[in-house]
Amino acid sequence: MSEQNSTSTRPTALVVSAHSADFVWRAGGAIALHARKGYDVTIVCLSYGERGESAKLWKKDGCTMEHVKSERRKEAEAAASALGAADIQFFDIGDYPLGITEDAKFRLVDVMRKVQPKFILSHSLEDPYNTDHPAATRMTIECRMIAQAWGHNPGEKILGAPQVYLFEPHQTEQCGWKPDVLLDISEVWDRKYAAIQCMQGQEHLWEYYTRVGKQRGVQAKRNSGGQAGGKNVEYGEGYQSIFPRMISEL
Amino acid sequence: MSEQNSTSTRPTALVVSAHSADFVWRAGGAIALHARKGYDVTIVCLSYGERGESAKLWKKDGCTMEHVKSERRKEAEAAASALGAADIQFFDIGDYPLGITEDAKFRLVDVMRKVQPKFILSHSLEDPYNTDHPAATRMTIECRMIAQAWGHNPGEKILGAPQVYLFEPHQTEQCGWKPDVLLDISEVWDRKYAAIQCMQGQEHLWEYYTRVGKQRGVQAKRNSGGQAGGKNVEYGEGYQSIFPRMISEL
Amino acid sequence: MSEQNSTSTRPTALVVSAHSADFVWRAGGAIALHARKGYDVTIVCLSYGERGESAKLWKKDGCTMEHVKSERRKEAEAAASALGAADIQFFDIGDYPLGITEDAKFRLVDVMRKVQPKFILSHSLEDPYNTDHPAATRMTIECRMIAQAWGHNPGEKILGAPQVYLFEPHQTEQCGWKPDVLLDISEVWDRKYAAIQCMQGQEHLWEYYTRVGKQRGVQAKRNSGGQAGGKNVEYGEGYQSIFPRMISEL
Amino acid sequence: MSEQNSTSTRPTALVVSAHSADFVWRAGGAIALHARKGYDVTIVCLSYGERGESAKLWKKDGCTMEHVKSERRKEAEAAASALGAADIQFFDIGDYPLGITEDAKFRLVDVMRKVQPKFILSHSLEDPYNTDHPAATRMTIECRMIAQAWGHNPGEKILGAPQVYLFEPHQTEQCGWKPDVLLDISEVWDRKYAAIQCMQGQEHLWEYYTRVGKQRGVQAKRNSGGQAGGKNVEYGEGYQSIFPRMISEL
Amino acid sequence: MSEQNSTSTRPTALVVSAHSADFVWRAGGAIALHARKGYDVTIVCLSYGERGESAKLWKKDGCTMEHVKSERRKEAEAAASALGAADIQFFDIGDYPLGITEDAKFRLVDVMRKVQPKFILSHSLEDPYNTDHPAATRMTIECRMIAQAWGHNPGEKILGAPQVYLFEPHQTEQCGWKPDVLLDISEVWDRKYAAIQCMQGQEHLWEYYTRVGKQRGVQAKRNSGGQAGGKNVEYGEGYQSIFPRMISEL
Amino acid sequence: MSEQNSTSTRPTALVVSAHSADFVWRAGGAIALHARKGYDVTIVCLSYGERGESAKLWKKDGCTMEHVKSERRKEAEAAASALGAADIQFFDIGDYPLGITEDAKFRLVDVMRKVQPKFILSHSLEDPYNTDHPAATRMTIECRMIAQAWGHNPGEKILGAPQVYLFEPHQTEQCGWKPDVLLDISEVWDRKYAAIQCMQGQEHLWEYYTRVGKQRGVQAKRNSGGQAGGKNVEYGEGYQSIFPRMISEL
Repeated sequence: MSEQNSTSTRPTALVVSAHSADFVWRAGGAIALHARKGYDVTIVCLSYGERGESAKLWKKDGCTMEHVKSERRKEAEAAASALGAADIQFFDIGDYPLGITEDAKFRLVDVMRKVQPKFILSHSLEDPYNTDHPAATRMTIECRMIAQAWGHNPGEKILGAPQVYLFEPHQTEQCGWKPDVLLDISEVWDRKYAAIQCMQGQEHLWEYYTRVGKQRGVQAKRNSGGQAGGKNVEYGEGYQSIFPRMISEL
Repeated sequence: MSEQNSTSTRPTALVVSAHSADFVWRAGGAIALHARKGYDVTIVCLSYGERGESAKLWKKDGCTMEHVKSERRKEAEAAASALGAADIQFFDIGDYPLGITEDAKFRLVDVMRKVQPKFILSHSLEDPYNTDHPAATRMTIECRMIAQAWGHNPGEKILGAPQVYLFEPHQTEQCGWKPDVLLDISEVWDRKYAAIQCMQGQEHLWEYYTRVGKQRGVQAKRNSGGQAGGKNVEYGEGYQSIFPRMISEL
Repeated sequence: MSEQNSTSTRPTALVVSAHSADFVWRAGGAIALHARKGYDVTIVCLSYGERGESAKLWKKDGCTMEHVKSERRKEAEAAASALGAADIQFFDIGDYPLGITEDAKFRLVDVMRKVQPKFILSHSLEDPYNTDHPAATRMTIECRMIAQAWGHNPGEKILGAPQVYLFEPHQTEQCGWKPDVLLDISEVWDRKYAAIQCMQGQEHLWEYYTRVGKQRGVQAKRNSGGQAGGKNVEYGEGYQSIFPRMISEL
Repeated sequence: MSEQNSTSTRPTALVVSAHSADFVWRAGGAIALHARKGYDVTIVCLSYGERGESAKLWKKDGCTMEHVKSERRKEAEAAASALGAADIQFFDIGDYPLGITEDAKFRLVDVMRKVQPKFILSHSLEDPYNTDHPAATRMTIECRMIAQAWGHNPGEKILGAPQVYLFEPHQTEQCGWKPDVLLDISEVWDRKYAAIQCMQGQEHLWEYYTRVGKQRGVQAKRNSGGQAGGKNVEYGEGYQSIFPRMISEL
Repeated sequence: MSEQNSTSTRPTALVVSAHSADFVWRAGGAIALHARKGYDVTIVCLSYGERGESAKLWKKDGCTMEHVKSERRKEAEAAASALGAADIQFFDIGDYPLGITEDAKFRLVDVMRKVQPKFILSHSLEDPYNTDHPAATRMTIECRMIAQAWGHNPGEKILGAPQVYLFEPHQTEQCGWKPDVLLDISEVWDRKYAAIQCMQGQEHLWEYYTRVGKQRGVQAKRNSGGQAGGKNVEYGEGYQSIFPRMISEL
Repeated sequence: MSEQNSTSTRPTALVVSAHSADFVWRAGGAIALHARKGYDVTIVCLSYGERGESAKLWKKDGCTMEHVKSERRKEAEAAASALGAADIQFFDIGDYPLGITEDAKFRLVDVMRKVQPKFILSHSLEDPYNTDHPAATRMTIECRMIAQAWGHNPGEKILGAPQVYLFEPHQTEQCGWKPDVLLDISEVWDRKYAAIQCMQGQEHLWEYYTRVGKQRGVQAKRNSGGQAGGKNVEYGEGYQSIFPRMISEL
């Protein structure tokens, strides 16, 4: 994995993932695509999903928490590498529920200021199945605010106003998630699928998220013109923006 | 006003205005900006606002409907010219309420197909003060669908999937309107204000919409980075998108 | 029933009821209370509810439409009288569905301009059980707009900006109705219950709406201070406002 | 196709489809499943989708409206037969937009009263891509109300209070559609796919809706217990209920 | 009170009540009904409501916190007994505000895993009058997630995917609560009213919640067919579901 | 600043401001207006906004936290004085994020009970730009509940049921804020502007909030009758109510 260089002039992006596999299913295409475009993408995994998202490992005799964390870390690092991410950091704050403390917040603020991301990716605002997901998003939005404060660690370079994009939850309609962006990830699908295959503990989700990619691709084509000139998009990812965007042309 | 040329390769846009002055207050900046960028912008005024938005004229003795329509038309043509619009069409279907018929719909479909707009502008989805506004939007969205139908006037070139942007209503919070786009119109503000001044009958709104422009400008600056690198936007216009957009980079 | 006098200086109110009994269950308290306070209250029944809300009558042999309308009219007139309303008008536009035409709209506009109501009462914005109810409300809001138009029947006195209060539907939560006003109708409950008893065809609703009155009374007490100084309200009615109100003191 | 018998004691269901193919993609599983369970399922196609959803046919030279309608009718009849529906009726009211008239409404009321469905299926409440869909739903809800009215065609058996289930639109999140029911259609998937294959003009949708079926199956499993005892559901369909349901056990 | 037996094959349910009386007013009918059907129903009272819902006791001279808790506990135990609940547990975490800690969460997780409820009852998602209520619901939904985690106390039997039903708040419309289920509790009304009478400190609510029961009964009848075959429901309780339900027949 | 006298018979109001300048921009008019009407208005500043809203101070060399707090306090005291507030209290709990603890809550409860406000002002329910704002509002609503509890500090006079009004956030549409009240502050605008000028560190907001005042004034006029008898309101402030209000006349 390449060294992140804060003096680089390369564009940057930040992904905040509640558990160590979330970034793969939900944002793997965006990570690979922007890496290919020359972005340094930093991934923060708040937890390993060691308690709540490692059923396969726990079902084996003699499994320990350290073993689970270690396995999950290896999978996540392999996936990040497959996607071409510049950096992946593990906060290890515990999952189910996430152990969000002031220290954890300030650590995320530090990352935001160091990375100075052009945009940030995180979870949906609601999720009745998994309250860690919206907790991570609330933390992200709060830390974005702190990172903008001149009086937090005075002298550091403050954060600008990066867009926060919410990636797709497992059951979108139950989570009040509505995408306003459909990203064409066709050219990097192979990398996303390679990353998906790193998730040995959750094989039952591989085809589920392959189908998600295809559906978003069909929708992307339709929304860009359909049969009357729409772009042929084989795989897509949907995102919901939090903030309005400043533009110079509609 | 320049002749619209359907064989042109210039980009195009369409504005659907319930009454003949709406396009000025709400979308004048977008029209002038895109005209300057080389777009052929077509404006459709469904009515003159002759009954509901011409109080000043009606207060004079001996006023007639024909006179009101004629005056409103002159003002709207002058404003469209000031903005650099390529074409302005008056459907004259009556206002308060709008007289929306199948004929009017098919006429709007014809315009959509001829113009083949890259994007369409219209009103908010709700407005308890003015039910003509959401009626125009519903009509626009319905006609967009009809214009996409291969079986409507078979043989014509069908419409693609242009974005529909909703412009700002008078009391935004009462209309459930939430902008996701803030357009920088600073460079064409003089043209928008010139168009505003064409509306001799509604002078009480001139300063109101000047202040709207300034507020949206401040917000555009803030959302593009604020004091940490935000673009200095003096005047802005807000828009709400109806459809997700297909993109290749976040 | 007293003659309505347009030159009166008494305050006025207008109730728009989809069917001839709606105003009793839902707004009878407000009508009686404001009548007692000196308001001239005008009730418009768009239909008699002859098809959809007259089951008891239709179950009898040989029943005819004329008979149903006549019976319903008698009941509604008796109820309006019991409440002290200044006027009740029957538009007879048909129910299930309401036969809303341009003529019906302009007739309602005429009433609005003649009455010049300080406020207007009508139904909820949604009702999946009874689509006539929201249709009446949409018509009311549209007609309020037309009545404000200088160019509609020029020369007439236009309408100001009366609040529109939505009265309580049968199953509030299914209708998206949220009251922001709880009106104390205790002092006129006897009149409301007398009006309710005029509805011989819908006796199954008498106790239902008595209980509604008591519940809203308890809530009114609670919201005015509860056990710490709340007003003792025995019977209440809830209303949802459409527009913000201009005030000089919070 | 079997003859529908109004004196039958078999349970019944009604599907209201805006265009002649909608019922296949969106409700084919429910139709086949309930047919297998002994329901007489009646399908009403308000239009053939002849203008808006027959692109493939129109692209051929010399195509006529009659030809399109005839082809679409044949496909729909074949699909209904594959699903085991008891009856399919074509109202032929025109599409893009639907030609909804009082006559069409009363015709649908007649069907509702004759069928006396235990439940009704129709479209989502919103759809910015296709305004015919919510128009069909509004019509269905309105007709349900009329069919309950004792004064509509007095003497006929009135309708009870059947649930209205909204089937899945093409882009769920853009249509405000949220399923509260996930129906296991695994055992009849072969029949649904056979019906899908009858839609020769829309082959691009076959795999799209196969994937939809699989995703809803995964979700059904998860919501019935997931890895801890959830039912293994291979294919599912989602529905949103309009009305609360009366039950005797949670 | 009968001993709860974790090896029992009887169905089970769990009620999470913020204060010790909430379960009576809001879910007493469901508890009694399912107890009669053979369910072992476990009630968890997070607090006694000792500070916020014991005004009558505090108004007496010399009242102490211990006395209030003791009295409230006695009332709640008597009510649980009257309803036929299998078990009632008092977490005593403090009220106004609830003292929700990680320990309290894990204790609730333990109960969930031991009880393995077929369904869970708790409060509405919002309540501006009483923030303890939605806090209890958020805790319940979070604990449901934790109880599903293989890595939480590995070796224990994990929780499946029980439905969470939200019971009725005091002012439904202000709490954004919308019932999708109306439960017929007529046959156990006597038991619910007996439990209500155990709440000596809140006598002002007895008739209020009797009327709630009657209103929900009328609505249940109406939604199951009304005058055309609806079930005669004298008393009902409303519930809002959080999750979609997997079914095999509509 | 006048001494607050708890035995006073003067009406009272309470403002809860997340940072020390919020009350000026958002509620300065309401404070000055009610002070002039004889209210004792108490302002609570939860923090000085020392970290997040003092950029201008931090940009100077050698700036310290104590200096920032001291400067911000001076400005806020000067502004409160200019507005005629009876009291201003600084909780100094830290900002970005607010350091909300049980102690801080109970301190706010103490103020509520001492002041016994007729109404309370605080922030919007959502704000993705500034999560301190909704945090302050949630705290306020929670403390209102605690202050009503007989068992909290038994013997103290409990709080009644004061309305909570939410003042205007910086970008209203992004915060889900919808005003139902437009307050005429024209007569005290000079005092509000004097208070605004005390905010030396945020001069870029002076004209922004002057324009906000003018826009709300125009809207207030329009909603009180517009050109047909509306009150001429030069400056206004908008508020959103949380609770329904008990009234005796619509």
